[in-house]
Amino acid sequence: MSYLKNAWYVAALSSEVNDADLFHRKIFNTSVLIYRKQNGEAVALRDRCPHRFAPLHLGKRDGDEVVCHYHALRFDCSGKCTHNPHGEGNIPKAAQVKSYPLLEKHGFLWIWMGEQAADPGLLPDYSPLDDGPPTGIGYAYMHMNANYQLIIDNVMDLSHIDHVHGEAITTRGQLSPIVPKIQETERSVFARWEWKQTPPILVLSGFLPKPTEEARHFFDVTWMPPANIQLSVGGAQGDTPFEQGVGAYDLHLATPETDGSTHYFFATRRNHLVDDANFNDMKLNAMRDAFVNEDGPILLGVQEEMEDQDFFEMKPVLLSNDIASVKVRRLLQSLIAKENGVLAEKAA
Amino acid sequence: MSYLKNAWYVAALSSEVNDADLFHRKIFNTSVLIYRKQNGEAVALRDRCPHRFAPLHLGKRDGDEVVCHYHALRFDCSGKCTHNPHGEGNIPKAAQVKSYPLLEKHGFLWIWMGEQAADPGLLPDYSPLDDGPPTGIGYAYMHMNANYQLIIDNVMDLSHIDHVHGEAITTRGQLSPIVPKIQETERSVFARWEWKQTPPILVLSGFLPKPTEEARHFFDVTWMPPANIQLSVGGAQGDTPFEQGVGAYDLHLATPETDGSTHYFFATRRNHLVDDANFNDMKLNAMRDAFVNEDGPILLGVQEEMEDQDFFEMKPVLLSNDIASVKVRRLLQSLIAKENGVLAEKAA
Amino acid sequence: MSYLKNAWYVAALSSEVNDADLFHRKIFNTSVLIYRKQNGEAVALRDRCPHRFAPLHLGKRDGDEVVCHYHALRFDCSGKCTHNPHGEGNIPKAAQVKSYPLLEKHGFLWIWMGEQAADPGLLPDYSPLDDGPPTGIGYAYMHMNANYQLIIDNVMDLSHIDHVHGEAITTRGQLSPIVPKIQETERSVFARWEWKQTPPILVLSGFLPKPTEEARHFFDVTWMPPANIQLSVGGAQGDTPFEQGVGAYDLHLATPETDGSTHYFFATRRNHLVDDANFNDMKLNAMRDAFVNEDGPILLGVQEEMEDQDFFEMKPVLLSNDIASVKVRRLLQSLIAKENGVLAEKAA
Ligand code: FES
Ligand code: FES
Ligand code: FES
Repeated sequence: MSYLKNAWYVAALSSEVNDADLFHRKIFNTSVLIYRKQNGEAVALRDRCPHRFAPLHLGKRDGDEVVCHYHALRFDCSGKCTHNPHGEGNIPKAAQVKSYPLLEKHGFLWIWMGEQAADPGLLPDYSPLDDGPPTGIGYAYMHMNANYQLIIDNVMDLSHIDHVHGEAITTRGQLSPIVPKIQETERSVFARWEWKQTPPILVLSGFLPKPTEEARHFFDVTWMPPANIQLSVGGAQGDTPFEQGVGAYDLHLATPETDGSTHYFFATRRNHLVDDANFNDMKLNAMRDAFVNEDGPILLGVQEEMEDQDFFEMKPVLLSNDIASVKVRRLLQSLIAKENGVLAEKAA
Repeated sequence: MSYLKNAWYVAALSSEVNDADLFHRKIFNTSVLIYRKQNGEAVALRDRCPHRFAPLHLGKRDGDEVVCHYHALRFDCSGKCTHNPHGEGNIPKAAQVKSYPLLEKHGFLWIWMGEQAADPGLLPDYSPLDDGPPTGIGYAYMHMNANYQLIIDNVMDLSHIDHVHGEAITTRGQLSPIVPKIQETERSVFARWEWKQTPPILVLSGFLPKPTEEARHFFDVTWMPPANIQLSVGGAQGDTPFEQGVGAYDLHLATPETDGSTHYFFATRRNHLVDDANFNDMKLNAMRDAFVNEDGPILLGVQEEMEDQDFFEMKPVLLSNDIASVKVRRLLQSLIAKENGVLAEKAA
Repeated sequence: MSYLKNAWYVAALSSEVNDADLFHRKIFNTSVLIYRKQNGEAVALRDRCPHRFAPLHLGKRDGDEVVCHYHALRFDCSGKCTHNPHGEGNIPKAAQVKSYPLLEKHGFLWIWMGEQAADPGLLPDYSPLDDGPPTGIGYAYMHMNANYQLIIDNVMDLSHIDHVHGEAITTRGQLSPIVPKIQETERSVFARWEWKQTPPILVLSGFLPKPTEEARHFFDVTWMPPANIQLSVGGAQGDTPFEQGVGAYDLHLATPETDGSTHYFFATRRNHLVDDANFNDMKLNAMRDAFVNEDGPILLGVQEEMEDQDFFEMKPVLLSNDIASVKVRRLLQSLIAKENGVLAEKAA
């Protein structure tokens, strides 16, 4: 399995990393430690002491520093060793933990695992997510036993909503006949579906003027490397333009844990009933349940059938609904090849 | 591990596959879907959608067809795609699920996993099993964590009954001294033991004239490829010939799931108290318990000691009781070699 | 992973192997059977029948012999087959179970897994452990999910007691600044720490004249191949020499189960309150809890970070506290290389 390494992946929800504790998670099979400095800024280090390789998350915080539990080497938030209680206390030059660039934006902590200089410009702008009250936005973390590309495939091909999802979000067979409109750039793939359905998508229908009558709907999905998808959904009736209809602005973000498992992050900001905390919780839970209980078993089943095999080498029978997900697979493949080429050149 | 591929293996008990559901099971590490058409006929397909590889058993039935749960491609019972709800609905020629020949006979569904044309003539005739009331026959499915050849070894060498099994079926040390009479053909190995014991085998003794006195007994086992063993057992006293004594006609059928696990199928038809449903259940449960609780731990233990090693390369110390099981191992080995040779020729 | 094979490893606590049962344990990935003859002498055999590879521990005792559960071959305590119930009962010459030299000493059963002749002279003399009442000594067996060398590292570098262990045995930061005094021979590494602390080590303090005041302490550890560490600890106050102070004579003995798991054996003999059985139990439980709950998670964490990688190739940042454990690693490495060299010569 190859990953795009010089890119921003979500390491955690902002809310997963509190002020006091040492958070850790495996990314690309590499253990990562994340914690917040006293000023609230989050930092990421390799979760492995350079001395005798104890996981640092077993240790404890000391101000902005981390003390290894095993023999109490202390490291600052850049990974530099600042204290050695052993012998005369000399600090070997090599006593350095690898640190990873970390950005906090849009409610997520984004990590850069690659060797090239981190480029904040490569982090997509998801600022519409920030625009509104906290009761109008929900975040979820889900662990999925499936390769991250299967999760991208799933979101870039929304036709599955016709078939996989239950009453709450089903599109009642309307998406499949549509070949989505595609726009592709050097670093993005965009797809748009527009259709009508009766009744409207149920999680939106209650906020439309005539909840049981036909509505116009759209889905927009935009993938950007490495595994970031912005999804917008909307509904409107009569002459109301989509901009004045009901809808949501969502993110689906996938971070490889291992070749066969993924950290799946989700955020959703809606434009209706935005001040109702109970509704907010209920809706987030409904969405998460749909992903975990409806997409989850299929993704797991596909993973078990594919194991470590390459998707294209397995000769999938591609259909019109695969257009966006295949474009993403090919573009990601070429970005990874380019990255490896660049690295190969550097090594040469 | 090599298997004889062009051969009939039991995929399921007939009773495991009902009229409504999608049954699935892994055979030779390959996921297989089995279901019944509306006329009751069972069919077998690869349990993998050719589109994006979702397991078909997650989908649903539609008449005689199967609809993939992920994006609703529909397949008929030959694996041909009959409906594509996407775009204009064109059906790519490659949209075809592999189908497997399936025969239903003697209460089992037999599958042919190989690439050569299925030959119904290779299915052994077990029609004595069909002869009698339903309360005189029992079927069991057991999952065993052991290579299928260990299960064949176990049944072809019935001397283990002297040592492994408890009161219900023990042969009280009488089998081991006997070197069974062997008959071998190009496609079968037959072994027969005859002996006397007091008391008789307990599951039979109650149906003999003098339950606590000496009886004559016999065991016949006949292996046929790939992993089918027919076992007959009988008991008689005085001048009564075996044909007029009590006994049972059993099948022991093994289907490889993985190199280290096996689907073990069992059937037993007896010639006594054949109309008693309670006795029927009780006897079947006693047999199954003996296999699971008495053979099971030994087979698991042997599997753990052997792991992936070849039996003969491990240099077993062979004894007179191994005569039939070794003949089966060698004959099966030569059939597999021949099959691979044939295939190699075809490829050349 | 390489092991020193021609060496004595602890296979079991003496108390783990009773007079009646068949004990078994995996050592170097090899299943071993241990049982006591009627005279109490313990013997060790490969836990695998040479016939069809059933684990012998599933069988039963018959006097000093073992009967295989599968087909009742009987073996004496040297592994020689003494009875074959099959056919005419001839015993093939090859019907021989491998036997392993076993010594019982100091409350442990020591096994020699190598191919060279067992050399009792290589078993270290731990006779001080035997000197005193049974209420003054405790034994423990712990299963650890970590390579055995991590357990040696842990005991040879006692600085971790400053940081890892809780109130009962903490050394309150006094060990880390000390570079232990080292003595090395061709087959041993010795390290000694001497320091003062207030309060004294808590498990000892109650037996010192002034339990809350400063005490002098020492730790001695002596490693001998393959994985045997003798640890002595003591405390004294005022002018009292250590020899008249309170202390304990402990063993830490590690036996590889697999590359990533270890049988960890512990014994402790103290020189105070030696007749109190309740205190004895309480103290042993406290020690075991410290190893399992305090060292255990760190050793597991290091194992997960290291997996199968070589310690030195991972380029650890070595500090003054590593001096003894690194000396052991290098000496053990050279002994293993020498053993392999010797074997290579023999083969040549
Ligand atoms: S392993 Fe971290 S200080 Fe030793
Ligand atoms: S995977 Fe079956 S229809 Fe897409
Ligand atoms: S396996 Fe031990 S006697 Fe057959």
